[in-house]
Amino acid sequence: MGYWGPNLARNFDALPDADLRWVVDASEEQLDRVRTRFPGARMTTSLDEALADAAVEAAVIATPVPTHPALALRCLAAGKHVFVEKPLAVSTADASEVVAAARDAGRTLMVGHLLEYHPGLNQLKELADSGELGQIHYIYGNRLNLGKLRADENALWSLGAHDVSVVLRLAAEEPVECSAAGQSYMREGVEDVVFCFLRFESGLVAHLHLSWLDPHKERRFTVVGAKKMATFDDMQPERKLTVYDKGFDQDFQNYGEYIARSGDVWSPRVPNDEPLRIECRHFLDCVREGTEPRSGGESGLRVVRVLEELQRSLDEQSSRPSGRAPSAV
Amino acid sequence: MGYWGPNLARNFDALPDADLRWVVDASEEQLDRVRTRFPGARMTTSLDEALADAAVEAAVIATPVPTHPALALRCLAAGKHVFVEKPLAVSTADASEVVAAARDAGRTLMVGHLLEYHPGLNQLKELADSGELGQIHYIYGNRLNLGKLRADENALWSLGAHDVSVVLRLAAEEPVECSAAGQSYMREGVEDVVFCFLRFESGLVAHLHLSWLDPHKERRFTVVGAKKMATFDDMQPERKLTVYDKGFDQDFQNYGEYIARSGDVWSPRVPNDEPLRIECRHFLDCVREGTEPRSGGESGLRVVRVLEELQRSLDEQSSRPSGRAPSAV
Amino acid sequence: MGYWGPNLARNFDALPDADLRWVVDASEEQLDRVRTRFPGARMTTSLDEALADAAVEAAVIATPVPTHPALALRCLAAGKHVFVEKPLAVSTADASEVVAAARDAGRTLMVGHLLEYHPGLNQLKELADSGELGQIHYIYGNRLNLGKLRADENALWSLGAHDVSVVLRLAAEEPVECSAAGQSYMREGVEDVVFCFLRFESGLVAHLHLSWLDPHKERRFTVVGAKKMATFDDMQPERKLTVYDKGFDQDFQNYGEYIARSGDVWSPRVPNDEPLRIECRHFLDCVREGTEPRSGGESGLRVVRVLEELQRSLDEQSSRPSGRAPSAV
Amino acid sequence: MGYWGPNLARNFDALPDADLRWVVDASEEQLDRVRTRFPGARMTTSLDEALADAAVEAAVIATPVPTHPALALRCLAAGKHVFVEKPLAVSTADASEVVAAARDAGRTLMVGHLLEYHPGLNQLKELADSGELGQIHYIYGNRLNLGKLRADENALWSLGAHDVSVVLRLAAEEPVECSAAGQSYMREGVEDVVFCFLRFESGLVAHLHLSWLDPHKERRFTVVGAKKMATFDDMQPERKLTVYDKGFDQDFQNYGEYIARSGDVWSPRVPNDEPLRIECRHFLDCVREGTEPRSGGESGLRVVRVLEELQRSLDEQSSRPSGRAPSAV
Repeated sequence: MGYWGPNLARNFDALPDADLRWVVDASEEQLDRVRTRFPGARMTTSLDEALADAAVEAAVIATPVPTHPALALRCLAAGKHVFVEKPLAVSTADASEVVAAARDAGRTLMVGHLLEYHPGLNQLKELADSGELGQIHYIYGNRLNLGKLRADENALWSLGAHDVSVVLRLAAEEPVECSAAGQSYMREGVEDVVFCFLRFESGLVAHLHLSWLDPHKERRFTVVGAKKMATFDDMQPERKLTVYDKGFDQDFQNYGEYIARSGDVWSPRVPNDEPLRIECRHFLDCVREGTEPRSGGESGLRVVRVLEELQRSLDEQSSRPSGRAPSAV
Repeated sequence: MGYWGPNLARNFDALPDADLRWVVDASEEQLDRVRTRFPGARMTTSLDEALADAAVEAAVIATPVPTHPALALRCLAAGKHVFVEKPLAVSTADASEVVAAARDAGRTLMVGHLLEYHPGLNQLKELADSGELGQIHYIYGNRLNLGKLRADENALWSLGAHDVSVVLRLAAEEPVECSAAGQSYMREGVEDVVFCFLRFESGLVAHLHLSWLDPHKERRFTVVGAKKMATFDDMQPERKLTVYDKGFDQDFQNYGEYIARSGDVWSPRVPNDEPLRIECRHFLDCVREGTEPRSGGESGLRVVRVLEELQRSLDEQSSRPSGRAPSAV
Repeated sequence: MGYWGPNLARNFDALPDADLRWVVDASEEQLDRVRTRFPGARMTTSLDEALADAAVEAAVIATPVPTHPALALRCLAAGKHVFVEKPLAVSTADASEVVAAARDAGRTLMVGHLLEYHPGLNQLKELADSGELGQIHYIYGNRLNLGKLRADENALWSLGAHDVSVVLRLAAEEPVECSAAGQSYMREGVEDVVFCFLRFESGLVAHLHLSWLDPHKERRFTVVGAKKMATFDDMQPERKLTVYDKGFDQDFQNYGEYIARSGDVWSPRVPNDEPLRIECRHFLDCVREGTEPRSGGESGLRVVRVLEELQRSLDEQSSRPSGRAPSAV
Repeated sequence: MGYWGPNLARNFDALPDADLRWVVDASEEQLDRVRTRFPGARMTTSLDEALADAAVEAAVIATPVPTHPALALRCLAAGKHVFVEKPLAVSTADASEVVAAARDAGRTLMVGHLLEYHPGLNQLKELADSGELGQIHYIYGNRLNLGKLRADENALWSLGAHDVSVVLRLAAEEPVECSAAGQSYMREGVEDVVFCFLRFESGLVAHLHLSWLDPHKERRFTVVGAKKMATFDDMQPERKLTVYDKGFDQDFQNYGEYIARSGDVWSPRVPNDEPLRIECRHFLDCVREGTEPRSGGESGLRVVRVLEELQRSLDEQSSRPSGRAPSAV
C-alpha cells in the first residue's frame, strides 16, 4: 500500500465482477492509512491469512521489485491467479521460475505493463501491423522528466521497463543485440540517465533515451516506417497518436535518387479510457476465460531478459578501466 | 560553387575589408550560374591561376569533404591563409597534415564549424563557463529532420560534424570513450540514423541523436548541470536559449534524500546576428591579427578525431561486412 | 451537491479549523450519492434544519446562480457567514441586496471567484502593481474550449465571470464603457461565443474572447504594458506566468520614431498550491479575523454590474427579439 | 521601390511571359538602389514616360495607399491593365471610381490581396465550400505581433486588409453589421490594437483581433462549422491547415441535450508554392485571357467598403464623450 498499490486496489474494487476482500501490507501504519477507503476489505499484515481465504481467487502484487518473484510463487502455490507489477523480476532466472510455476499450477500470471493497455499505443500497434507504415525501420522512445530519484532502481529499470515492453510488442521479435550506456550523478551506482540500443534480426533498430534528470518532460515513441512515420506522445492532451505521410520516394527520373515526401499529418481519435482500468479488467477477463494475458508471464519474462541484457551492457561500460581513447595523433 | 559556396562568396564579398577576386570551380557551367552575382570577381576553372595572383591573401574551400586536405595543402603551399568547410578531413591523418602545413607556413587555418559562431551557443558556452549551471553532468544533441539523402556521407559526418564541434567546445576536453550505433535504410552502407555516446575523463557524458529520416525537425542541445539546466533550440524563432532552474536539492530533514526543484525558466535575448557573417568576419580578423581562430586547425582536427573514432565504432558495431566510411567516395 | 458542491465540501472538510456539520440538498438522491464521502456530516433536505444548528457559523452556497441571492439572504438572516459561488447574482439589484444584508448583519460575505486565488494570477497582479510592466495599456483574455453546453447560462455568464473578476482586479478601477457581441448556435438565445470590450477611465482597455464552441482549448490572459508584457496561461503545465521584455523604444536618432525591442523572456516559478484550497482557507481566515475577503461582497457586486452591462449590450446588439439573460431561467 | 515594390518587380520579372520594361519611382535614389537588380528594365522618375511606351501592357502599383486611386486611374487612362497593392483605396468612393474606370476601359484591375493566393487558404475555402465543415457558424482571425509601427495607417488598415479579404472570400456575402473598437498607445489617433466584429445576413459572424503591440506572433484563422472546425495557422512551418472533427451531437437519449464530439484531427498537405508567385502569375493569366481576377476590382472594393465601415465604428467610439458607464447602484 505504497504509492501504486491503492490505485490497483481502487480499480479492482470498482469493477463489478471483482470483490476486494483483503488488503495486505507489512506495515500496520500503511494499512491504517487506507482503511477508510476500502471499507469492504479486511486488512492484515499476514499474507498467509489472506491466502488461506478460499474465497480469494486472485492476488495483486505491488511491492518492491526484488520481492516480486518470492511473493508471486507463494500466491501461485496457494492456488491463486497472480497479477504482479512490472517488471516481473530483476533476473531472468527468477522470472522464468515464476512463469514455470504459473504454467504448472494452471493459473493466470499477468505483469502490469500498463502502457500495453493504453488505447493510443494499441492503435499504433494496429497501424504498424496493418502495413500502413510500411516495414518498420526503427523505433525510438524518449522518457524524460525531472522525476523522483530512486535509491534502489536506476532509470533503466524504473523508466525503461515501460519502453522495453512497448518496443517488444511493436517489434514482435526479440533483439539480437542490446547495448546501453549511462551515468549516475545523484547516487553512486544508480544511473540517472541511460541510453539503450537494440538491434533485431529483421533489421529493425530501437533506441531509448531514459532520464529522470532532465529539464523537459517527454513520454514519446516515434516509429519510422518505410512508407509513413508515427508518433505516440503521451504528454499531448489531444493528438496522442499522429501519423505522418513522410518518407523518401524513388525519383523515377534520376535512377538511384530519392525525393523527400512530406504529406498529410493525421491524428486519429484516441479513446479516453483509462489504461489502468482496461488493464485490471483484462486481468479479470483472462482469469475468467483462462486466456493468456496480453502482458502475460512469457511476455513479462521477455522484458526482464532485455532489461537484464541492457544492465549487463551498462555494467560492462562502467567496469571498463579507461574507455577507449581516440588514438593520439 | 555548389550549394554552400555561393553563401560564403556572398558573405565575404559583402565584408568591407575583403575583396572577392576569384571564383574557382572545376565546372564552367557552375561558374556561369554565378557570374552575374559576383561581377567584381574573375571566374576560372584553374585553381593555379587564382593562386598565382599575388594579391590573393586567402582561399575559401567549399568542396566535397574528401578533397579538403589536398586543396588546403595547395593553397597553403602558395602562401595563402585558408578557410575550409567542415569537417576538415575524413581522417585524422589527413587533418593533421593540413594543420602541420599551416603551422609551418605561418598561415591562418580555420574550419567552417558554423554553430561555434551562433550567438545563442556562445551565450550557452559563457553560461556553462560562468558556473551558473554548476558542474556539467551531461549534454545531448538532437539533430533530426526529413532531410536530403546523401550518397557520399552518412548522418554521422553530415549532421554530426555540427554537434561534435559544439560538444567539444562546451566540454573543453577530449573524450576517453566514443561509441556509436546506427543503421542504413535508404542506401546500403550509408547510415540514415546514428546514435553517439561520448564519455569524458571528468565524468561528463554526451549523447547525439542524428537522423535525416525522422518526422520531426529538431536542432537542439540540452545541457544538464548540477545546479541548473539549459537548452539551445535552433528551431525556436524566439527563446533559442532557455535556462531552467531545475535540479535536485539535498533534503536536510532526511539525510541522503533529494527534493526536486523546479524553479524559474529564463530565456535571455539572443542577438539576431547571422552566424555565417560572424564566422566570415572572424576569419578576416584572425588573418589580419594573426590570432588563432575559435575553430582553428587544431580544433577542427579534434572534431575529425572524434568523428573517426565514432565511425570506427559504427563499423565494428555489428557483423555487417561493410560499414562504409565517407572516405570511400 | 451537483458538480462543484462536493469539491467545496471536501476542501472545507479537510481544513483543520473547519468542521463540515451539514450537507444540504433539495434532493435526497443527491445526498445519498455523497453520504459515504462525508461521514462526519449530517445530511438534510431542509436548509432551515441546518441553519437552526447554533454550532454552524458559516454556510457555503453552490447552487444554480439565480438562487444565490435568496439563499444567501436566508443564511445571513440566520446569523451565518456566507461563502457563495460565483457570480453572486444575475442582477446588480439582487447582488446589492445581499451585500447590504451582510453589512447590516456584520457577517462575512465572500464570492467564489476562484481565479483570484490562483498563485500565478496573484504574481501577475503583483508584477503589474510593482510597475515593472509600466503603465498597463490593455489586457485580453481567451477562454475557449469545446465545453459543456448550458441551457441556463450563456458563455458570458458561465465563462466570463472568471475573466471579469480577474480584469477588474488587475485594473483596480471600474469600466466606463462595456460592449459585447456574440451569437447563439446550439440553443436559441444562449450565446455560445461572446466578445467583450471594456474601456476604463485611465485609458486601459480590456477584451474577452469567450466560447465553448471552439477547436482550441485556451485559458489565457495577456497584459500589455508600456514597458513589458506578460501572459498567464493556465493550459501550460509549467511556465504559467511569462514576462516578455518587449515593447517599443524611442529612437533617439530619429525623433518620433520607435524601435521594437524584443528582449529576455522570463517565467518565474508559480507555486503548485491548489487555488480552491487557498480560497477555502481565505474564507475561514476572513471569518475568524473579521477582515474583508479579497473577493468579498463589494467585489462580487462589481463583477455582476459589469456582466449585467455586457449582457445589456449583447441584448441590444442586434434586432433579435430575444437576447436572453441567464436570469430568465 | 520601397519595401514591397522590389518583391513584385522580381516576381514579375521572373515569370516567363512577362517582361519588366520600366521601374518608376519618384526618387532617383530609390531607383539607384535597385538598378543592378533589374538590368533589363529602364529606370525613370516619370510615370508618363513609362506609360507612353506602347509596348507596356500592364502597370503594377505599390505606393502609399492614399495614392493608389489616382495612379491607377492614370494607368487605366493610358490603356494599361493594372495591378494595385492592397487595399485599393482608403474610401469606397475612390475605390468605386477606379473599378468603374477599369470596366469602362475594358482593362483588367486586380488588387494584391496576397492571402487569397495562399494555397492553404484556398484549401480552407474549398473545404468550407464542400460542406465538410457543415454550415459555417463563425470565423475569427488573430493577427498579432510586435511589429512595425506606422504613422500613416492604423492596425485596422495595415493588418486588417488581409483578414477582411479572407473573411469576405470565405463568407461569400457582405456583412450587415460592422463594429470595431480599439485604442492607440504609441501615436495619438493611430490605433495599435483593434477588435472587429462582423455579422452577416446568414447568421455568420466574424471577429478580428489585430495588433502590432503584442508579445505573441499569431497569424491564424479559425473556422467553426456546424459539423467540423478548421484552422489556418500561417506561423506553423508544417500543418498550416488543420481540420478538427469536433462539435456537438444531439443526444438521442436525452432530447434537447448535446454531447461534445472530439474526433480525428487532420492536417492535409499544403503545397509550398509561394503565394506571391501565384498571385503574379494569376494577374498575367487574367490579362491574357480577359478573365476577372480572384481579387479583382469589385472584390477589392468590397474590402474597402468593410474597412471604411469598421473605421467609422472606430471613430464613433472614440468621439463618444464618456462611454456608457454601468449604472451606479
